[in-house]
Amino acid sequence: MRATTIHGPKDIRVEEVPDAAVRHPGDAVVRVELACICGSDLWGYRGVSQRVPGQRIGHEFLGEVVDVGTGVTSLRAGDRVLAPFAWSDGTCPHCAAGLQSSCPDGGIWGTGAADGGQGEAVRVPFADGTLVRLPEGVDDALLPALLALTDVMGTGHHAAVAAGVGPGSTVVVVGDGAVGLCAVLAAKRLGAERVIALGRHADRAAVARRFGATDHVPERGDEAVARVRELTGGLGAPAVLECVGTDQSWRTAIGAARDGGRIGYVGIPHEAPHLPLRELFERNVSVAGGVAPARAYLPELMAEVLAGELDPSPVFDQEVPLADVAAGYAAMDERRALKVVVRP
Amino acid sequence: MRATTIHGPKDIRVEEVPDAAVRHPGDAVVRVELACICGSDLWGYRGVSQRVPGQRIGHEFLGEVVDVGTGVTSLRAGDRVLAPFAWSDGTCPHCAAGLQSSCPDGGIWGTGAADGGQGEAVRVPFADGTLVRLPEGVDDALLPALLALTDVMGTGHHAAVAAGVGPGSTVVVVGDGAVGLCAVLAAKRLGAERVIALGRHADRAAVARRFGATDHVPERGDEAVARVRELTGGLGAPAVLECVGTDQSWRTAIGAARDGGRIGYVGIPHEAPHLPLRELFERNVSVAGGVAPARAYLPELMAEVLAGELDPSPVFDQEVPLADVAAGYAAMDERRALKVVVRP
Repeated sequence: MRATTIHGPKDIRVEEVPDAAVRHPGDAVVRVELACICGSDLWGYRGVSQRVPGQRIGHEFLGEVVDVGTGVTSLRAGDRVLAPFAWSDGTCPHCAAGLQSSCPDGGIWGTGAADGGQGEAVRVPFADGTLVRLPEGVDDALLPALLALTDVMGTGHHAAVAAGVGPGSTVVVVGDGAVGLCAVLAAKRLGAERVIALGRHADRAAVARRFGATDHVPERGDEAVARVRELTGGLGAPAVLECVGTDQSWRTAIGAARDGGRIGYVGIPHEAPHLPLRELFERNVSVAGGVAPARAYLPELMAEVLAGELDPSPVFDQEVPLADVAAGYAAMDERRALKVVVRP
Repeated sequence: MRATTIHGPKDIRVEEVPDAAVRHPGDAVVRVELACICGSDLWGYRGVSQRVPGQRIGHEFLGEVVDVGTGVTSLRAGDRVLAPFAWSDGTCPHCAAGLQSSCPDGGIWGTGAADGGQGEAVRVPFADGTLVRLPEGVDDALLPALLALTDVMGTGHHAAVAAGVGPGSTVVVVGDGAVGLCAVLAAKRLGAERVIALGRHADRAAVARRFGATDHVPERGDEAVARVRELTGGLGAPAVLECVGTDQSWRTAIGAARDGGRIGYVGIPHEAPHLPLRELFERNVSVAGGVAPARAYLPELMAEVLAGELDPSPVFDQEVPLADVAAGYAAMDERRALKVVVRP
């Protein structure tokens, strides 16, 4: 079979790899129908995060079960499934609590020796705990929206949940990548009355508006903070969704938060931003979030997509066949694309 | 009048100072009946925090109103009142939201040129917004318990609220100072089923038990974390109350937290502890808290003290007359006393 591999900075290839196959009784093999490229894949692409040359890559996919191990009880060949960006055993205390991202048996596609999502098929460990079955007869037109649930929409939702967004909330979203845009959609979905989207790009601001943003702030840094304060009676927002993970985005998030407010963060803190604890202390600004338990949110969000009530698919603005996946990376790296679908 | 002043490390004096007097229409003058020494006063006493030589000190007191400005509407001479450790205007958006600690007109007794609590009287700005009137005829025996509400009990309560403690919670309390002990009491009061108190001192552990601690962990650092994990099925606690503010106490708090758990923190972060954001992110451990809005909690906690349902007074284990306040500082500094009442 063919799959995407990463060999070094800007060196993405499609190579012949061993066929995905059941190795443990709990495994399933999923033939990938749709995958996509994540902003976090770019960290490896840009050489900021180290990868082992030849490592598989991609952690967002949906597809069809083609084989299951003898221990799999809830799925069979022919089932169409969504895979969250991490597998999890479904039975440990963390999984039981809905925090599958902390499952000690879990892992993220494309890390270590695990299969990546940007390929023809994936071996899925703990298939019963990991995969979510789609009902039969799903309209193919809904697949991109469903694909978005495997990471970016679940992650944006996690930011909103962590920040305590609810009916009537005023929310600031820092970051206009796919996760930030999904965070706008998630905040709106949870009942936010006012959603202030930060970001420089006009095309992304248009998606944010479509997703429910009521205000757009193109400024950055201190100017963005000043603008948010202007828009919030000088106080800042009670909920801020940090969807970037850099030192600057954190400074913006903290500055945009109202005293007593909550920052829900999902931007991977690659640079280990310095949190000014003394300022957080004096202003009672709290910080919650982390790796999204996308698995926990899938059933609820999937039902809404299937019912036509939720559509995060506008985060995708390009599609490439698997053979051209490298072009998809380049397009995202050069910001010619927001998020790219990969069709094996 | 006489009041406590600080002139340098370990140099606490009682001196003649100008009489407290109404200066603004919103002021009241309170004759101090009881005050006390706070663990945070020791930062100045030990020279860790800078003080202006001769500066007033002390931020916990209760007493009798002896004069009010023309703008004061809710109080009159003769009223007995509790003063939270900070004054606040009572009218700004933060006060309206119950976060009086963020009031832009607010301040803490004994900072800058403000009167300190360890003296014969205090000028109270924004008396209507700041002071809480006691009903007539309060039993003097309840005064120490009421005095504890002005800071340590309100602060311990804030930690528990920030960590989301509620019925059935499992809670770890880091720190066995007066605030940590009050945090135990607050957690129990909010319905916690299990309260694991950390601390080396047997006498303080006894108070913790009396306040509702179900377990005591005398170990420190990694050993304390290991012990907490043993006591919590290997997982750590969903709620951790950080009541110290040092780098070590933070490491213990983070280690003792269950993935997905919340750290409620009220220990003043003097050392600006380094928060390992990447670990918090991977484990979805959230961090909430800060300066307690003691004013917001006073009415509720006062009612329970007056009803005999709440008694934080065991945090006090010594009393000195104002003239001997320096001896009180020495006793707390040398850990011969947990918390000292000062009677002018």
